[in-house]
Amino acid sequence: MHAMTDAQWRAFLREGTRTGKLALVLPSGRPSVTPVWFILGEDDVLRFTTGANTPKARALAAHPDACLLVDLEEPPYGYVRVSGTVRLVEDQELCLAVATAAGARYMGPERAESYGQRNSGGDEIVVELPTSKVQALAGIAD
Amino acid sequence: MHAMTDAQWRAFLREGTRTGKLALVLPSGRPSVTPVWFILGEDDVLRFTTGANTPKARALAAHPDACLLVDLEEPPYGYVRVSGTVRLVEDQELCLAVATAAGARYMGPERAESYGQRNSGGDEIVVELPTSKVQALAGIAD
Repeated sequence: MHAMTDAQWRAFLREGTRTGKLALVLPSGRPSVTPVWFILGEDDVLRFTTGANTPKARALAAHPDACLLVDLEEPPYGYVRVSGTVRLVEDQELCLAVATAAGARYMGPERAESYGQRNSGGDEIVVELPTSKVQALAGIAD
Repeated sequence: MHAMTDAQWRAFLREGTRTGKLALVLPSGRPSVTPVWFILGEDDVLRFTTGANTPKARALAAHPDACLLVDLEEPPYGYVRVSGTVRLVEDQELCLAVATAAGARYMGPERAESYGQRNSGGDEIVVELPTSKVQALAGIAD
């Protein structure tokens, strides 16, 4: 087992269609975890879109501490965990850009535009999680 | 997008080497999420082993509410989320059985015994999460 370098955890987060597992605290005080389609920007900020009135967005508005995990589900296993405080951003232009980039990543370039439209506009917002605190381990089963 | 049947979510949780993403609340009140090697028993209880003095076990002892997610990381995407209150069990025989079954699942039958030994004994305990509350969605991108 060994820690990843900064270049390694960035590449790990960006690889293929790996989803982010976003943990948050519900208004009841109980934890929850939900899969998200995210992108890692050149500014090292993780971003995804969600509806402003979803349980996820309401929980984050009330309790902005969050934790996002991406893991390798086969030997030798490994994971990157980002912990921090999210920022909820209402910006339609950014929202369309994030949703389109996520659509390209998770559904393929030819469907990027349609998924970009589907996951932006209306009451969709952008959630930003900085990567100031990162734990990244590779080769857990070694 | 459609809900899975009970038989479908049980099969989904058991498929291959999919890891469980366990969300919990840290003593600081912040959420965390960590990958676990789990098994789903015939009694519909999720089980995994961990050291009694790990941050994960300490957090669960203080705040036993937890949530475990397993997701499909490719189109059409989907997930099973189990929410509940965990029970921490000190039982060396059960611990060896769970660690061995998890070793077989995640590292293959030929390495089950060595991983069973590695992840039991000492201060290892079993964490049990009942599946009384399950959300299971398939075909999210459809």
